[in-house]
Order: sequence, then structure tokens, then C-alpha cells
Amino acid sequence: MQMTDIIAKKRDGGELTREEIGYFITGYTRGDIPDYQASALLMAIVWRGMTRRETLDLTLAMMHSGETLDLSSITGVKADKHSTGGVGDKTSLALLPMVAAQGVRMAKMSGRGLGHTGGTIDKLESFPGFSCALTDEAFLSQVERIGLAIAGQTADLDPADKKLYALRDVTGTVSSIPLIVSSIMSKKLAAGADVIVLDVKCGDGAFMKTEEDARTLAAEMVEIGKMAGRRTVACITGMDQPLGRAVGNALEVKEAIALLSGSFGGDLLELCLTLGSCILTESGAAANDADAREKLERGIADGSALAKLAELVEAQGGDRRAVYDTSLLPSAPVTLEVPSPAGGYVSGIAAEHSGLVSMHLGGGRATKDSVIDLSVGFVLNKKTGDTVAPGESLATIHAHDEKSAAEAAASLSGCFSFSDTKPETPGIIRTIIR
Amino acid sequence: MQMTDIIAKKRDGGELTREEIGYFITGYTRGDIPDYQASALLMAIVWRGMTRRETLDLTLAMMHSGETLDLSSITGVKADKHSTGGVGDKTSLALLPMVAAQGVRMAKMSGRGLGHTGGTIDKLESFPGFSCALTDEAFLSQVERIGLAIAGQTADLDPADKKLYALRDVTGTVSSIPLIVSSIMSKKLAAGADVIVLDVKCGDGAFMKTEEDARTLAAEMVEIGKMAGRRTVACITGMDQPLGRAVGNALEVKEAIALLSGSFGGDLLELCLTLGSCILTESGAAANDADAREKLERGIADGSALAKLAELVEAQGGDRRAVYDTSLLPSAPVTLEVPSPAGGYVSGIAAEHSGLVSMHLGGGRATKDSVIDLSVGFVLNKKTGDTVAPGESLATIHAHDEKSAAEAAASLSGCFSFSDTKPETPGIIRTIIR
Repeated sequence: MQMTDIIAKKRDGGELTREEIGYFITGYTRGDIPDYQASALLMAIVWRGMTRRETLDLTLAMMHSGETLDLSSITGVKADKHSTGGVGDKTSLALLPMVAAQGVRMAKMSGRGLGHTGGTIDKLESFPGFSCALTDEAFLSQVERIGLAIAGQTADLDPADKKLYALRDVTGTVSSIPLIVSSIMSKKLAAGADVIVLDVKCGDGAFMKTEEDARTLAAEMVEIGKMAGRRTVACITGMDQPLGRAVGNALEVKEAIALLSGSFGGDLLELCLTLGSCILTESGAAANDADAREKLERGIADGSALAKLAELVEAQGGDRRAVYDTSLLPSAPVTLEVPSPAGGYVSGIAAEHSGLVSMHLGGGRATKDSVIDLSVGFVLNKKTGDTVAPGESLATIHAHDEKSAAEAAASLSGCFSFSDTKPETPGIIRTIIR
Repeated sequence: MQMTDIIAKKRDGGELTREEIGYFITGYTRGDIPDYQASALLMAIVWRGMTRRETLDLTLAMMHSGETLDLSSITGVKADKHSTGGVGDKTSLALLPMVAAQGVRMAKMSGRGLGHTGGTIDKLESFPGFSCALTDEAFLSQVERIGLAIAGQTADLDPADKKLYALRDVTGTVSSIPLIVSSIMSKKLAAGADVIVLDVKCGDGAFMKTEEDARTLAAEMVEIGKMAGRRTVACITGMDQPLGRAVGNALEVKEAIALLSGSFGGDLLELCLTLGSCILTESGAAANDADAREKLERGIADGSALAKLAELVEAQGGDRRAVYDTSLLPSAPVTLEVPSPAGGYVSGIAAEHSGLVSMHLGGGRATKDSVIDLSVGFVLNKKTGDTVAPGESLATIHAHDEKSAAEAAASLSGCFSFSDTKPETPGIIRTIIR
């Protein structure tokens, strides 16, 4: 088998066999196939697409390119959750304890991520002492013991995806449904959960700009998950404005704590309840959505969800007191209000641009070697559909110094648009694909 | 400017600006842009194509990636000839002396090539002592003095094409009209001739399998050549069976000498007269095609064309006596006739497969480090349309030993097909595009 023949076959619109896909993934992971041949094939895949069978074979080949996690020693149903990512997306921080408090075991591998803020792991490191560097054994035993663990993805898990993703990023080959599906699903399958719930975001601040594109991606991921024998559900959710109000690592942790304490609602709560219901019903921990929602709300009301977060923090070396006293979390030395330049209704908050405000404050990574400032970011005081008076605060900037605060305030102000009439605001949940 | 943006623009069907194309070619030639980004862009170009303006800009950027040859010090009109390559294509060996004998200056850069036989340079090295390693100065002064020189392409000429061609070869990105056009035309433009005549072959033994594809390629090359200010003509010619009768380096030299001596005709002579007429008329050395043909035929009849070959051989260090006594050229120790397995008409000779017979005998390069045996190959005794009796010789194999001769005879026999009725044989010249 020759790589040039495989490239030419896909270039000419052919369907690759399982053997050809396996040859590519094995050879590329080992370093036998050079980057320049891989990138040519990737561009041919962007062009010609892949059949569902090819996508499944690609996903499985990538999944088996390294270690896979065997969760079978853990009792009960194990679930995992994945988000395609957006601005202010602290969902996992609230959702995982909510679900684990209901007895479903959440074994989550997470990343650090490049972008507006850090990933879930960076955010959790706001808890002094917290570490996501768990051995496989520690990870498994923690899930068994407290029902919840969040670990950094090990180097041995899905090495094909690590190499391919880095290559796609610099060769214009990110935007391809089979490549996105295989990248996400190969990692989820390798991480071993029985139930996989996917949060596929659409809108200005998401990778998928339209609901239609998000639906196509979600449907394909659900099918691939099912074909691989996992219970898989996807929720298409809105990302036209930042999720919740906080954007920034420690600020988002505080918002998640507020939600788990029953003092924060809105779109973030609705999203957590919807995703959580999917997990509980698919896992058999609730009879139906109404039952699931009631359980999840009760877990917030009785403090068990917040207690589960404290258990998690403690189990992974963090200071559990910070869950109940958020003044122990990082906080920025400078705060600055962003006055509204207009009055009326907020008609929109450009999600992607507002994310860049957080990044420029130092809250995200521009390159993989960037150091994140966990304390900085902003909290929205107004969201789309809210009324505002001229000069009233749109948001509060949390910054390292006055200069960066002023720059951020000016940028963030420009992300808001206004109208005289109340804008239509679609709900955060668009569709659920099972 | 960022390479990822350029890749994405072409991926999405956009038209690249001259600046973007220049950025890519300059950066790639210098090594600032890695192979994996170049190959992704190349595949996007295979997919989306290029406008004529983009193709021209790509061609000119490649042409200017290194040294260009200035032929202005040479008096008179300078012409160059390029063939897209085929089996038994020894056209340059006969054509160049024919044309130079009529006073048109032929300044030809040539390559060694991978494939069934060596390139023109390898073939010429059949003359003991002959060398194509000329300095630019020696090349120019030889063209001025005797009207003809053939040099190996220097490393400084079109380095972008050298890198790109090597990359295309291993990334499935050879088959793209703008990439083929820019590769050929950038080298021809850099070599500096006023008149460029292109032999674009079509058929089983050619890169372009159909006449339609060859016509598309030829038309684009002629346009690009004209837009760059050169008189450019293309002939679409047949490559459904080997050209002439000889395939193999020294064997082809002997055939070219036979043609220049007036003792060999057929398709090869017709091709040389047609290409030669194009060069003479475009150069102003003949009033029209009839005049050109008469001059070229007279040059064969009066021995001046053969004398020009002898001058060339002598000027480049070779033994000119071999032009008049071909026993001084390399010859293989073993010859073997290929008996016909059938009687009737020869209805076809698979060009590409018969080329491989030459390569397996040792006459061509499988990799760029292969050493060529100049003596081996075969001579067809029958061509398409000829009658043959069972057992009559179809071809004569020239080999290094009995074993390889027997293998070659079996393989070559399988390249022939037969019919009871006389097959239609289209002429070698299909179309001329000016």
C-alpha cells in the first residue's frame, strides 16, 4: 500500500477502505508518513468528504492509535460530556457535580485549549493546589469512590488526533465534518464512557456559525457514537452571546459555584439542566426528562451538587474551602465598569470579539506556551434583551492593571449593539439529537 | 500575510492575488514555508483550479524564483522546444540539428528524467565524452558560434519548480492544469528563448491520456507563453504507441542519426518536420509551412542537418566520428527477436507498458539514483497497422544478458494486440495551437 495512491484515490472522489485508513493513521502516528502527505490527504478529505463508513473507520483507527481507557472496573453507568467550545463556557464546572450528585459516574478527560480563556483544567486550577495530573489508576479509583474525576488528557490517549489536529490547524483543513467528527469522537471513545453527551454550539462565538451546520455535525457525531456502541446524544445550543455572565477563568469558577449554590440561573442553568437531563435519562438514572430535571434541581437546592464539587476539589489536591468562600480564589487587582454608550435594549453582544477581550486581558492562550492569568476577565451586567440606560454599566472588567482595563472596556463596549425595540432572543437550547 | 489564510482562500474557491502567489513561491523556495503547508495549498489548487491570471502570476513567480538566462547577447532568433514526454521520444536529437542547420538558434536546457529511458541528456551521453555540464558563458557562446547547445538545467534555474515538482510527485498533486502549465512554462521562460514550441502528447503512453485534456493543457500553455511575451506554439501529437521504432538510449540516438541521414521516416520524421516548421515560421526563417518543410527536407538530403549534430557532439566534448560510424556508440551484448504469437494486423502496441520493458532492461531510472545502461532497449520491427505472420519478429530486444532479454521479450510480446482487419491509425499530428 502506498500513501500516494491513497491520496490520489480520495482526490479523485473514491471511498477509502478500512485498510487504507488504518495504514494512514498507523503510519502517520508512527512518523512513517510525513506531514506533507498527511496534509495533502486532509485537504482532499475537506474537498471530497467521507462516507459515514469511512468516518467511522477513521474515528476507530484514531481511537486505537494509542491507549484506550477501560472503565469497566467502575460500578454503574459512566458518562462523559463534550462541548465544541464557546465564550464563557464553564458548563462542565457546574454540570459534572450536578450529575455526579445523582449517582451517574462522570469520568472526564479534558484539555487546556487555546483561545479566549483556558480550558476546564485551567479554570479548575483556580482552586489553590488543584491538579488534573492523575494516573489512570488514580483517575479510575476516584471515579469509583466519589463518582467524579477530571483529568488532563494523557499523551498516550489518541496520539493520532494530537498530531492531526496540530497539522490541520496550520494547513486550512479544520473545517471538514468527517475530520471534526473523528477528532472529537475518537477521543471520547478512547476515554471509555458508556454515555456520551455532546454540546454542539452554533452562532458567532462558535466554530459552527449556523444552526444547520451544527445540526449536520451533531447528527454525524451521534451516528458514529451509536455505531461504536455508545449511547450518544447531542444538544445544539446557542453561542450568539457569551454563555452566562462571566468570561475568565476564576470568574467562571465563581459563576459555576453560584449556580450550584442556587443563586445563578439564566441560560447557563437551562443548559446544565438540559445536558444533565440527557445524561440522567440515557444512563437510566431518571425515568424521563421531567424526573431528571426535578432531581437535578433538588441537588442544587439541598446542597449536594455543591458538596460534590467540594469533594472533587479535595480529591484532586485543591482547597475545598474555596468552594464555600470564593474570596480564596484568584481575584484581579483592578476592576472597571463599562458604561453604556446608548440607551434602550441590548440587541446583541458579539461573542467572538468579547472572547478576544478576555484573551487580551491575559485570560487565554494565544500560543500553547502562553501563561494564563486566572484572575482576569469580565462579568456581563447586561445580556441580550436587557434594557439599559446611557451610562449604566454593561459589564465589569477584571484586569491586572488600569491600562489593560481601560483598553478592555473600550473593546468590550464595542461588542454591544442596541435597539429601541425589544429584540427577539431565541432560547439557548435549539435541538436535541438522539 | 499568512500562509494559512492563503490556503483557506483557495480552499474556499477564492482567486489569489499576485502578492499572495509571490509570498508563497518566495517563502517556499527559501524554506520559510514548510512542505506540509505547500502540499495543502497544492491540493486546494488541484480542487479549485486557477484563473488564467493566477496561472500567469504563478508561472512568473516561479520563473523569477532563481536565475533567468539572458540570451540577448546571441544574434538572431533563439528558439526552444519542450515535449511533455512519451515512450521512444528522441525528437530533440533529430529536430534540433535540423532546425539549427536552417539558421535558427536552438538554446536548449534539458533534464535527465525518471522513466522508461533517460532524458535527452542521458541519450546524448551515448556519444563517448559528451557532456551537458556547460557554464552559462560556454552555453551562450556555443549557441552563438554553432547555433545549437544542449545543457543540463542548472540548479539556479527555477528552484521553485524543483521543490514543488518533487513535492507534487509524492502528494497526488501532479494532475492539475495550472500546476503543470506553471511548471513547464516557468522553466521555458527562465531559459530565455524568443520562440517556444511545445510537443504535447496524448494517449496511453503520455501524461495526458485524451486528446481533449492535451488540448486544454496546450491552449493554456500557449496563452501563458504569449502573455509573457514569447512566440509560443503547441502541437498535440499521438502517443498511443512508441514514437519511431527504437526505445532505449543509444538505440534512440542511432535512430535519430538514421533520420538525419535520410534513411528513417515514418511518424518520427513527420513529427520533426511539423515541429521544425513551427519553429522556422515563428522565427521568420521560413515564409510558410511548405517553405519550412522544403528547407528542412533539403537539410537532411544535403547532409547539413547531420553535420550540425556532429558539430554539437564535438563542441560538447563528444566523439563526432560516432555520428558517422554508429558502431562507436554503446551496444548491448545480447539481442533477441520477439516472435509474433499471432498473424494478421498489429492493432495496437501498449505504449506505457512497452516503456516499462525498457526500464526493466535497465534503460530507465526507477529512482533518481538509478544508474542507466545506455545500450539496452528494443527496436520495433512492426508498428500499428503493419501486417505480421505468426512467428515473424515483432521487435528486437537489446539486453545485458539472456535472462533479462527473455523476460523483456515475453513482456513486450504482451504489449501487442492483433486484428484480422486493418486498424484505423490516426496520424501522429492531431492539432496545432498557435
